[in-house]
This record gives sequence, structure tokens and C-alpha cells, in this order.
Amino acid sequence: MSILSLFQEQMKTLGYNAYIVPTSDFHNSEYVSNYFKGREYLSGFTGSAGTLVILENKAYLWTDGRYYIQAAKQIEEKNIELMKAGTLGVPTISEFLNSKLKDNDVLGFDGRVLPTSFVIELQKTISAKIKYKTDIDLISRVWSDRPELPFSLLFKLESFFSGKEYSEKIEEVRKILKNNNSEMHILTALEDQAWLYNLRGNDVKHTPVFLSYTIITLDNVYLFINPNKINITIEKYLDENSIIVKPYNDIYDFLSNITGKNITMDYSKANYQLYSLISNTNNVSNLTDPTLLLKAIKNNTEIKNIKIAHINDGVAVTKFMKHIKESFKNNVSMSEISLSDFLKNLREKTEGFIDLSFSTICAFNEHAAMMHYNATSESNATIDKPGFLLVDSGGHYLEGTTDITRTFALGNITEEMKIHFTTVLKSVIALSQAVFLKGCNGINLDILARGPIWKLLIDYKCGTGHGVGYLLSVHEAPNGFRWQIVPERNDSAKFVPGMITTNEPGIYLENRYGIRTENEMLCVEKGSSEFGEFLGFETITYAPIDLDAIKIELMNQEEKDWLNSYHKDVYNKLSSYLTEEECIWLKEYTKEI
Amino acid sequence: MSILSLFQEQMKTLGYNAYIVPTSDFHNSEYVSNYFKGREYLSGFTGSAGTLVILENKAYLWTDGRYYIQAAKQIEEKNIELMKAGTLGVPTISEFLNSKLKDNDVLGFDGRVLPTSFVIELQKTISAKIKYKTDIDLISRVWSDRPELPFSLLFKLESFFSGKEYSEKIEEVRKILKNNNSEMHILTALEDQAWLYNLRGNDVKHTPVFLSYTIITLDNVYLFINPNKINITIEKYLDENSIIVKPYNDIYDFLSNITGKNITMDYSKANYQLYSLISNTNNVSNLTDPTLLLKAIKNNTEIKNIKIAHINDGVAVTKFMKHIKESFKNNVSMSEISLSDFLKNLREKTEGFIDLSFSTICAFNEHAAMMHYNATSESNATIDKPGFLLVDSGGHYLEGTTDITRTFALGNITEEMKIHFTTVLKSVIALSQAVFLKGCNGINLDILARGPIWKLLIDYKCGTGHGVGYLLSVHEAPNGFRWQIVPERNDSAKFVPGMITTNEPGIYLENRYGIRTENEMLCVEKGSSEFGEFLGFETITYAPIDLDAIKIELMNQEEKDWLNSYHKDVYNKLSSYLTEEECIWLKEYTKEI
Repeated sequence: MSILSLFQEQMKTLGYNAYIVPTSDFHNSEYVSNYFKGREYLSGFTGSAGTLVILENKAYLWTDGRYYIQAAKQIEEKNIELMKAGTLGVPTISEFLNSKLKDNDVLGFDGRVLPTSFVIELQKTISAKIKYKTDIDLISRVWSDRPELPFSLLFKLESFFSGKEYSEKIEEVRKILKNNNSEMHILTALEDQAWLYNLRGNDVKHTPVFLSYTIITLDNVYLFINPNKINITIEKYLDENSIIVKPYNDIYDFLSNITGKNITMDYSKANYQLYSLISNTNNVSNLTDPTLLLKAIKNNTEIKNIKIAHINDGVAVTKFMKHIKESFKNNVSMSEISLSDFLKNLREKTEGFIDLSFSTICAFNEHAAMMHYNATSESNATIDKPGFLLVDSGGHYLEGTTDITRTFALGNITEEMKIHFTTVLKSVIALSQAVFLKGCNGINLDILARGPIWKLLIDYKCGTGHGVGYLLSVHEAPNGFRWQIVPERNDSAKFVPGMITTNEPGIYLENRYGIRTENEMLCVEKGSSEFGEFLGFETITYAPIDLDAIKIELMNQEEKDWLNSYHKDVYNKLSSYLTEEECIWLKEYTKEI
Repeated sequence: MSILSLFQEQMKTLGYNAYIVPTSDFHNSEYVSNYFKGREYLSGFTGSAGTLVILENKAYLWTDGRYYIQAAKQIEEKNIELMKAGTLGVPTISEFLNSKLKDNDVLGFDGRVLPTSFVIELQKTISAKIKYKTDIDLISRVWSDRPELPFSLLFKLESFFSGKEYSEKIEEVRKILKNNNSEMHILTALEDQAWLYNLRGNDVKHTPVFLSYTIITLDNVYLFINPNKINITIEKYLDENSIIVKPYNDIYDFLSNITGKNITMDYSKANYQLYSLISNTNNVSNLTDPTLLLKAIKNNTEIKNIKIAHINDGVAVTKFMKHIKESFKNNVSMSEISLSDFLKNLREKTEGFIDLSFSTICAFNEHAAMMHYNATSESNATIDKPGFLLVDSGGHYLEGTTDITRTFALGNITEEMKIHFTTVLKSVIALSQAVFLKGCNGINLDILARGPIWKLLIDYKCGTGHGVGYLLSVHEAPNGFRWQIVPERNDSAKFVPGMITTNEPGIYLENRYGIRTENEMLCVEKGSSEFGEFLGFETITYAPIDLDAIKIELMNQEEKDWLNSYHKDVYNKLSSYLTEEECIWLKEYTKEI
């Protein structure tokens, strides 16, 4: 009997008609530790985003455009239907449940793994006569070898890395709370707590955070965390800053005793169980975590460090590119996994390196059409014929987090492939060169990147870029580029100097190949006039863009000038960290066109 | 004593603390007949958009970016403060009133000249303790020589012009009403009624509409209109279509007797007095006029006709351009007004011509920096020195409505002027060439036009383009281009093939010059693929773009190709309507670059 059938049997026994299993921990994190991978356990789908809705006889998996192809493969023959979220005609989960559930049916989920906003929205959409059961984590009943909750020791990010002490940060947060008439804010987002305390952990793979909750009042700060994660140095630091430490799960009891307060929490992050404990006895309202914008706008120390991280990271990627190009030419055997390991090894040798910022995507030809492919021992392709190798990778360094994609042409590629590669490059360039009035967001700018690709009647089914954390999540709100607002992504904030956003348009042709070129860009001031203040971007990723794949005739002079100037910059920034032989190679791959 | 002081005295006598005078008639029309020009009468500001808020000792005028310069001049020394709507830090009218009025103060306005949505929003923002007095039209008390309500006879637009009979249109409207559970819709927008009935009038200068209200039930249609406007032919037509005619003002009594119905109306258009008569005794809800989108998506007959109108109109503009260029060269005396008259004369000779679609903007050098300048006998400039002459004009024809702007270089213009002109042209071209996924709106596309100008740290303080009616208002909702949503403009609808939108970026330098190039564009299908359906634009305005003002080095090959192809198209479409001499001239002004 399949796990899913087993789960459905449990549902029947306990009287559930539907059960929701999101991809989430108690903090609505984008990436979660293994303990929380119930959706993957039940469905087999390994992507980083997706929600499973299980009915009595069938299940439904919602996921976004990055994963349509991968998800379809992984759920094949499992009695699970793929729901392509964001596609015309595909209902939202709320709409779907509304159409499927009858009055008095029982809808279940673990109230700790769904954000408050999702449940409030759900309750608005579906019939008031549906019953909710949110206090049982049904997955534990079928998942016998479920992993433990993660455990890692905390470490401190010194102020020459963070650029701002905790004491300053908490002042800024409290000022925002006062302006919003809040007496108590419940901060549950893991990245935001890590940022606030200048602490990091290792509880989630490739995301240096730790499981915790924080309650901020105007006088006190309570940190709910497994106390074993705190060594004596960190204990002293917390004590000096009057941060009161309590056990991780005690927040639920703690909140049960609060009454009559003006409490704020970010409904898109704080889980529903927290909300339900306080909403009847307090004045609870939705407030975007005050840390969100403060964290996204990097300070000058962070910016200085991040540029160092990108040079170090660019050196690794450049050596990697040389290795690939030369190995292919010399018929040296390579596979997706061996190359991922090679690149990891290069990064590990780099000063300040802490971890990869996500599992390397090293995808050859048709594998790259799955935007977020991860090679497994079964799928692992040998790189032994011409084509495109797409490598999307990044590192966490004490100096910041990187995210870079390069697509490498190997052997003779077709004219069409060159046209597609060059079009993606034109897209990158157009967005890089944007100058815009203060007040613009990613919705305004997205067409600069997507436009050249749309002219080929091609689209990529994801955003054009996302914010990047500082030694935190590689996907960070609230900035990004996409053409339509997707509320749950929260990435359409107005740009502010200091924000860092990726620029990563692509072309993905099912069963053929995928192309993506990704740079990170720092939002900077461009000047002001009687017409207003203008902003733009500075590209801070440094690695060659493969000249072998470019069809020069498709580029106009302005685009060529950009590329030449970018490549000159790459050479100047990286060459002093390379051997003479590597420099000669890089000179060739950054030559003027 | 000034009119404004007289008005304030009346306010005092009747116990008002504040009084709102918008630019509106009983139908929230953009352009209004003279009877309704109370805001102009009281303030002296002649622009087409603006709201005056009069307090006991001072008045405040809100207007948008098109009119900042003009309004400032016209209200000088009048005890009126200019409120630059849309500028950072400038309060909305509601916010302003909320800050100025004390509890129990009396706020007044004529309930017939403010839309329901405005008043509902106002009531949400300001203290519940403010009293409203909305039944007195205070302007009549000071405006002794107020014009009469407009009077014009109706005429019918035959179906080879309209492309769709009334009977079909009302069916489509009723279908939408049924889908929205509406038993009765109150349609008050003048353009929408004219469209629905395939009737036109001449009640508003340059807008061929007639003052009327319409009530649509599932069985009946009531047209409230001055019956003297209906001749025997129209009477027969209305009768054949079972349209029940009632006197214009009877709608207020008619609605007072309605109870217990599901009534819909478009709160952004229907006036507050209508709403207040029915809201307590019926279930009233907001529904965008079903006619709005139906009217905006031109049918094939309309599109065929509109293209004819643009050729005819382009012939007039081309002859006009030749006249200007040659007169300047030959030192023939010209002025802004003489040229406006010359152009009007050319249009009047054109087949199918009915009226100008708006007062011609013929603005020389610094006058053009005021985006919507209209020459008066005092301001009338003589065109006797080098510079830019901006001419924004259009006509109403039986075949449709046109709106075109060309900026002409006269004599030697500076390098900077050429750079600015060429940049505006690059903006026009980029937007013309857009290809985009179905679902995009003007917010997505605006940066294509604004981007090249923003790169010069210059902005134009208005939208990039607006919808255009068919022998109706030259500004038509719901399509347009701008970078931020302005709710009251209602111009951010998703594009649909058949919509017509202007493309008119510009550069306006106070006290120096203004440049605008404006074409109309038809939204068309570009093809579809596995990635979705793609749309784009077809430019349907045909007249030369002044080659004398272009700095060719600034244009890339793609842009030159567009211009050359456009100019070839202009020549081919227009030449058969021109004399041989004119053709020779046009050949030169549409030559390849």
C-alpha cells in the first residue's frame, strides 16, 4: 500500500474529508529541514515549493512554473493530479476546496504549518459550514522514520560583517512598532530573527538559520529556542543584550496567557495556531515584520562585504568554467554530479565560505528545461555531446550570499541555440541598464527582461529575479521582478537603494534545453533632477558570460558596449586571484566583441 | 470683490465651512459643457481637469501633471493654492478636508456633480461628525450669466459605421447584468449611452454625446433625455427598439419610487444623488458599466473605418506639415492661432468630418512645455524664430476619432533639442514594437516608452497613452499606459485585441520647449505558442515624423528599420490623396535614414 493510501486510511479513521500538506515549517520558511518534508514524503515531489491537498480518494499537487515539468514526472502514476498554479483556469486551493467540500465536511491541517493569511483567506472563500480540525499533525501517524527536528549551534556574525549591532536594530524595530500602535510583535520568520540578533545557525539545509520564535514588547525581547543550541559565548551575548531565552515550544503556552494587548504579527509568516491562541482575547492585527525592509536594504558594510563575496565566488565560477571548457575539448569525462562536486570543492577552498546557498543546479541539455533540476544518481547525465550546460549555484560566505547562473556552450551548438542564448543576454542587459523613477517596483521593470524573449513568442514561467539575503536565505522578500503581483511571493516592493535583486531571465524548451544567465544587481541612486529621483542597478556578479554562445549580429552597439565593459570589469576584478594560465584563458573569454 | 469672495460670502450666509467644486457634469464626464464650468468660473483655471475646494478664507485647486504650469499661472494672485495631485506629500482632497474640518463643520457640494465612489471614499476618510449638505448648487447663486444646459439634436450612426446594432448591444449588456445578479443597471456615462444606442449628439464641445441617463432592466430600457432633442426619425428608431423615453430630470423621481431591487451602477460614474435616492431601500452595488469594455474593444467594422479615418486625418496633417515647413522657409507669417485655424480648415474639407476631437494644441517653444496649452489672443505666439512647434490635434469622423501629435523643427535647432526629439522617438518606437503575454496592462508596458527618457533623468508627468473612442470621447477608459495605477483614471485594464491606445511620450522643459510624438495603436494578436497567447500593436496613425529633428547616430538599426518602414507605410497610404507636388515633398520627408 502506498504512503498516500495509508494516509488516506488515517484520514478516514479520524473523520477527515480533506487534508492540506504545504511545503512549510512552523515559520512558513521557503526551505525547510527534513522534519518538515511531509509533502515530499507523501507525494514524491522534491521541488522547493508545492502544496498537496489530499481528498478521500485522490490527491492534488499545486506547484509553480519552475516545477511543472519536474513535478509531472515525479508524481506520475501516484493518483496525484498536478495543478499548475498561476495558469489560467487552474483554481486556487481555496477555490478548489470550496468546489469539492460539502457542508459539515471536515478539513484538516496542522495549524502550525500554515500561515495565518492563508487560513483567513481560506475561511473567506469556503462555506462557513465546513468544519476545521487543525490540532493534529496527521503526517506523524504514517511517517514512522520521520527525522528529528534539526539541531545546530548558533554562531555570531560580528559587526564588521553585519554592519549594525543588535541594539541598533531592535531600536529601529521598536520605533516601527510604536508608529503602528503595537505593544507586542510576534516575529516568527527565521531569517528575520537571525538578522535581528546577528546570529546564524544551520537548522535548514543551505539556509543558515535556527528554529526559533521571538516576541518583542516595548520593554522585553523573548527568544524561544532549544536552549542546547546556545553555547556559553552566545548565552553571554544574549544576556548582555537582555534577551530572555525560553524553550522553543513554550511560545504556545506563553501566548495563551496574554490578554488585552495590541498585538501585531505578519499574517503571511506567523502560523495560524499562534493567531488562534491570541485572537479572541487580544486586539491582533496584521503588520509586515518591521525587520523585512530593514533587512532587505543592505547597509554600507554589508554592501562592501557582498562585493568581496562576489569576487571570491566569481573566481570559483571562472575556474569552473575553464575546467568545463577544457575538459570538454579534451574529452575528459564529466557528469552533472561530478561537475557539481567540482564546483563545490572550488567554493569550499574560498575564504569565508560557510555553505552552498542552495543545491547546485547542474543541468545538461533537456535537464535544464526543468528550471530547478537537481541531478540524482539515476538522472545524472554524462557531458559527452554538444549542447548547453546550465549551472545555477551560489555560496554563503561571512561576506554575504551569492547566486549566479551561467549557461555554457559545449561543442557546436545550433544557430537557434545561439539566437536563444543571445536573446537571454539582451534581456539581462536591458534590465541591468534600467534607469527609473523612485517608486517603481519589479512589475514596472519586468518587461525590460521579458520583452526580448516575448518577441520570440517564448516566456519563462517564473519571476525574472528575487531578493538575496546576507548570509541568509538566497530568496529574500520584498523585492523582485515579475510581471504580475503574486501576493504570496511578496516580491513587488518599491526599489530602494541598497536592495539586492537577481536578474535571471531564461528560455526553457521542454525535452531540448534550458538557458539562464543570472547576475545579482545592487539598487543604486542614478541622480535627481527637477523631475524626481532616479534609481538604477549596479551588477555585482563577476564571471564571464559565454562568448561561444553569442550571435554578435543580434546585438546592437549599446548592448555590445555593456557586455564589453562588463567583461572588462570581470577581468579586472578577478585576475589578481588567478594563475597566469587562468588569466590568459580569462582574457580570451572576456575579450571585446 | 472677486467671484471667489462672493462665493465665500454665500457659503458663510448658508453656513458652509467648505465647498467642493469639481470639473464635472451630472455624468462625471471628462469634458463638460459650459453650464458645468463652475470650477473655471470661480478659479480662472481653464484646464480640463481640476477640483476646487473652497474654505472660508482660502481656496485650493487640485490638478494633475499636465496642468501644473498652466494652473499656477492662471490662479496667480487669486488666493488659491495649487495642489499638485500625485506629487509626493500632497494630500488627497479627502485627506486635506479631514485635516481642515472640525466636528460639526458643514461640507457642501452638489450631489449631482460628484461620483458615488468619491463621496463614499470621502466619508470613509473624514470624521463621521462632519455634516454634509449636498442638495444645493451654490454656484448658481453667484453665476448670474450662467449658460443654459446644452441643446443639440441626436443623429444616428448607421451600422456600417458602428458595426453592431443596438439590439445586439443590449443583449450583451443584459447578459453581463444577469451574470452579476442585477435586476436594474443605472447607466449614466454619456459616451456609454451614445455607444449603446448608436446615437450621437453635440452637447459637449468636441465630444458628440448628449445629456441623458439610462435605466436598463431585464425587460425595459428607459432613456431620460430632453425630448426636444429627438426628431421624428430618431423617435421612430427608439420606438422600434422599445426604448422608453422620459424627460431628463425625471430619473430622480423615477428612482425615488424603486424599492427592493438588486440595482447596480458604476460608482465611479453614477452621481451621488442617484445613489442616495436608492441605497436605503434597495440592494445597491457597484458594477463597472457593462458597456465600458464592450465599447473599448472595437469590432471589425469599426477597425476598418478607423483606419480610413486615420488616412484622411493623416492627409490633413501632412498637408499642414508641408505648409508649416514651407511657410517658415519663406518667411511667411504664422502664429499659433493662424496655424490651428489652417489645420482645422484642412480637416473640415475631409469627407466624413464632424468636429475636432479636442481643441487643437498648437504650441511654440516654451508654450509647449505646458503639455495642454491652448493659445489665446493674449498668448498667441508668432512663429518667426527657430524652435519646436508642437501640434496635438484630432478629428471626429463618421469613421472614428483621431488623436495625433507631431512636433516640428523650424530652422536650426540645437544639438540638445535633437537629442531630446530623438529620445522621444526611440520611446515611441520601443512601445510600438512591444510583444507581450495576454494579461499585461499599461503598467507592465509603460517603461518601454518612459525608459529611454528616464535615462536622461527626465520624466513626463502624465500617462504615456489613453484609449480613444469611436466618434466619442478622445479619452476613453479602460486601457492606457502609465507606470502607477491612478484609480480615478481607470486606464489599467488588461489589453485585448481591438483596443486602441495612444502612444505619446514627451519631454517638457519649463520655459524652454516641449516635444511630443503621438501615434494611435491598435492592439492585435501576435501569435501563440506553448508559452501562451501573445499580443502587440499596429500603429494606425499615418503622418511623417519630422526627420529634420532626428539625430540619426542615436538610433540603432532596429529603430531605423522601424522608422523607415513606418515612413514607407505613410507614403503608400497617403500619396494617392495628395497632389504631385505634395507627393514629391512627402517622399523627401519619408525618405530612408
